[in-house]
Amino acid sequence: MTIQHLEDVQNRLDTRNLPIQRVGVKKLNYPMIFNDDGFVHQTHGEFDLAVLLPAQQKGAHLSRFTSLLHNYHERDSLVMSLELMPLWHKRMLTLLEAEEGSFQCSFNFFIEKKAPVSQQGSLLNYRMNLCCEGALIHPITTLTLEVMATSLCPCSKEISEYGAHNQRSLIIVKAQTHEHFKIKSLIELIEQESSCEIFNLLKRVDEKYVTEKAYKNPKFSEDIVRDVLLSLKKNMPFLHHLSISSEHLESIHTHNAYALIHEHS
Amino acid sequence: MTIQHLEDVQNRLDTRNLPIQRVGVKKLNYPMIFNDDGFVHQTHGEFDLAVLLPAQQKGAHLSRFTSLLHNYHERDSLVMSLELMPLWHKRMLTLLEAEEGSFQCSFNFFIEKKAPVSQQGSLLNYRMNLCCEGALIHPITTLTLEVMATSLCPCSKEISEYGAHNQRSLIIVKAQTHEHFKIKSLIELIEQESSCEIFNLLKRVDEKYVTEKAYKNPKFSEDIVRDVLLSLKKNMPFLHHLSISSEHLESIHTHNAYALIHEHS
Amino acid sequence: MTIQHLEDVQNRLDTRNLPIQRVGVKKLNYPMIFNDDGFVHQTHGEFDLAVLLPAQQKGAHLSRFTSLLHNYHERDSLVMSLELMPLWHKRMLTLLEAEEGSFQCSFNFFIEKKAPVSQQGSLLNYRMNLCCEGALIHPITTLTLEVMATSLCPCSKEISEYGAHNQRSLIIVKAQTHEHFKIKSLIELIEQESSCEIFNLLKRVDEKYVTEKAYKNPKFSEDIVRDVLLSLKKNMPFLHHLSISSEHLESIHTHNAYALIHEHS
Amino acid sequence: MTIQHLEDVQNRLDTRNLPIQRVGVKKLNYPMIFNDDGFVHQTHGEFDLAVLLPAQQKGAHLSRFTSLLHNYHERDSLVMSLELMPLWHKRMLTLLEAEEGSFQCSFNFFIEKKAPVSQQGSLLNYRMNLCCEGALIHPITTLTLEVMATSLCPCSKEISEYGAHNQRSLIIVKAQTHEHFKIKSLIELIEQESSCEIFNLLKRVDEKYVTEKAYKNPKFSEDIVRDVLLSLKKNMPFLHHLSISSEHLESIHTHNAYALIHEHS
Repeated sequence: MTIQHLEDVQNRLDTRNLPIQRVGVKKLNYPMIFNDDGFVHQTHGEFDLAVLLPAQQKGAHLSRFTSLLHNYHERDSLVMSLELMPLWHKRMLTLLEAEEGSFQCSFNFFIEKKAPVSQQGSLLNYRMNLCCEGALIHPITTLTLEVMATSLCPCSKEISEYGAHNQRSLIIVKAQTHEHFKIKSLIELIEQESSCEIFNLLKRVDEKYVTEKAYKNPKFSEDIVRDVLLSLKKNMPFLHHLSISSEHLESIHTHNAYALIHEHS
Repeated sequence: MTIQHLEDVQNRLDTRNLPIQRVGVKKLNYPMIFNDDGFVHQTHGEFDLAVLLPAQQKGAHLSRFTSLLHNYHERDSLVMSLELMPLWHKRMLTLLEAEEGSFQCSFNFFIEKKAPVSQQGSLLNYRMNLCCEGALIHPITTLTLEVMATSLCPCSKEISEYGAHNQRSLIIVKAQTHEHFKIKSLIELIEQESSCEIFNLLKRVDEKYVTEKAYKNPKFSEDIVRDVLLSLKKNMPFLHHLSISSEHLESIHTHNAYALIHEHS
Repeated sequence: MTIQHLEDVQNRLDTRNLPIQRVGVKKLNYPMIFNDDGFVHQTHGEFDLAVLLPAQQKGAHLSRFTSLLHNYHERDSLVMSLELMPLWHKRMLTLLEAEEGSFQCSFNFFIEKKAPVSQQGSLLNYRMNLCCEGALIHPITTLTLEVMATSLCPCSKEISEYGAHNQRSLIIVKAQTHEHFKIKSLIELIEQESSCEIFNLLKRVDEKYVTEKAYKNPKFSEDIVRDVLLSLKKNMPFLHHLSISSEHLESIHTHNAYALIHEHS
Repeated sequence: MTIQHLEDVQNRLDTRNLPIQRVGVKKLNYPMIFNDDGFVHQTHGEFDLAVLLPAQQKGAHLSRFTSLLHNYHERDSLVMSLELMPLWHKRMLTLLEAEEGSFQCSFNFFIEKKAPVSQQGSLLNYRMNLCCEGALIHPITTLTLEVMATSLCPCSKEISEYGAHNQRSLIIVKAQTHEHFKIKSLIELIEQESSCEIFNLLKRVDEKYVTEKAYKNPKFSEDIVRDVLLSLKKNMPFLHHLSISSEHLESIHTHNAYALIHEHS
């Protein structure tokens, strides 16, 4: 049997008369570059790629999703950025001969931060998802960014003679945008609205600084999502459909405290 | 300082003028009973509970979420069922003095299945999420059910002289409903549309049966989501806003194949 | 083809002359009862069961592992306890006709705790693993218990004018034992050596109490493992091969602080 | 208060008379390069670093672990390789002024593979852990490599008229070594002993090939661990303390089949 004789089962006519909104691959890993408005991060991404399958078609050609990534990987590098998402989405729809779809990648990247007093540097890791979704014309690009920070409980501080419980919190910002901007700047705005930002290397003078700063700056998860929303609406008005959550890994409970705010749309 | 003098910081007036859509707790674990239309499963659930916080209020009283569960736990048992979800939702809104919110629990339960030929029994574990969401009047109950099954690739079978690659697949059905019915019946309908259902104890005669059945019944992830949708629309017309996905842990790739279909709404 | 004619491939003679230390099943889930010295918890366990396979045998009869659990499940209930582990281990070796093996189950259970001032109750969830390992004669039973607690940093407290960073910590105690005792008592001993124990429902008077207690009781991960070891050697001398770790989800870093101590053996 | 006046709490004398075997950091993420015997992979690693703490010392200086990585990151790059592990271990012990410890990193890397017939390329991701453990003199370097592959059940094939259940399997090889060699060669040896190796891009001619190859080459988890052990002892005699496991994500069960073999030592 030669290659020509192998039937293309996916191309068979389907008679169930049901289009499928998304058919594709999940958890396809590839090395990639994240270009943050000129600042380049070498990393690897987990790709979830899917397209609309018309009612009359039995299956999608899944190998083309890997082809898409591999061809660009071979030629040069897989470069992902806010700006390039619509182009990746278009490339996918074209190769898959599809009318709409969703191109999504999740990855880690690192930013150097200087400790607040000693100025010693360390890297912080952030997790991000970029998604471009919809039809060829006017697809929507959404970013989801995860930032860890310190939160200190206002109630605990108020009612206690000394101390206040605090904990690691995960702040997640989701937004749509058509503009290009530095994700690093978004991170800074988010961190400013926590009780204190996090560093991965602190000398004693720094530990004193962050301890006292968090104590002077108590915030419920409710405060953090409100303050991040206000700051982003003021400082990054080009972000739309904002959704902000803050999940606190409470030091005094086995469960987490949680708040989620989103813009009226 | 006595209990009366401890300020209720959460009750402070908030001046940012931003209601928060959801404030609550995540990953609160409690023992519970899942009542599947009369068939009772003793298990434990992970609860995500949250309410709308009005613009003028600084914080929610998070301890009330635990109180809600603990009071019923102490009195008798936490009984969760499709039918009881609106009641739990109402109890939460009442205790939290909130206008809307989301009451959600995720849990495992077990169903005994007889091997197809030897009739030997074994238990299969299923994961489920029940969610009741919205205002006091007309909240929406949504169920999410995860079912593992075997899928066998139609293309691989067609083009190969012998054999066909197959794998474990995860089928997830999400639906809204106002009716009560047996989840066990829903599971059976889903499993029937895979290449073959799964058992946790198979003797040789059974293994022969499931191997041959899957081979005679090849299905792409596209086929499974279409066939499950058709079956549920026919057999369970009281399920609305159906969304069905099938994720195949491909035996020939490190990534998964995926299809997601949902009703036009 | 009838059942008699289906060859037992696993029983074929193997010529590679290599015994395999462990052959079995992983992540087999079954409902079970955890009997904590008379205090009974209804839960479900994840079972990892495996036996030694002799050099001359091609494969193990994996369906027997499920049979083992299912037969007891049907007859009555799967009851697991420190005391019963050697019996389960023996049942497994007997059914599998094996010389040695490892019988292991992991599960969640709940204990009610009263808030320190208001005395309001709530449940705390704990994760535990029971393992019985070795030959039929003198197998070794090991327990692994996970306890969450609050830790407050002594350095941060010492150097700061006010406040001190604190966080959720996971303390894991592993020990061998031939005696029966209440795991609940072990939990209490562990929690006493943290900066403060955790409750899932705290009123304001309680929150004040736990905040101040943790502040008065600062502990590095190093302090926690040393203090737990000293306490257990004094109060539970029947625990052997003690290994104690404490992992702190630092509120000021994205990484965790960690300490692990074990007895000289 | 100036930097000189902040007490070094960790340096306090400890009177509990208990050395702690390992004190350090977990889940510290940093970008790194994996040098596979000259073939260079840009990636990021999760580092678990810990040292022995003498009995008389209250705490370790955890910030030095981050310093260690950050200094090399700034100077050039963090380069990890089998060959360099003892040097990293030594650098850690020196900086922490410790007598023994464990330097460990886990990371993903990618290797290009050509589809068996069409020769089309795709990348496969592998997960690896490198660990150097012990005292300054003669520390032990251990590698742990995770490889996904296809397994096809010999029993299912033998007893069925057509077809055979198969699935994705995870093969994990752990070994000690003092020699340098290409991990890529180790991967090839492991993949050869599965029913069929995995590719992330297969055209129809390739899918026919891998389907038929797996069918002609059935293997229990027992077969895979025995065959990998025999191959490695023959082809890589410089690997010591070999431990090989194979976990099959059974397409016909919700649990996994598992085998673990290790050399007599």
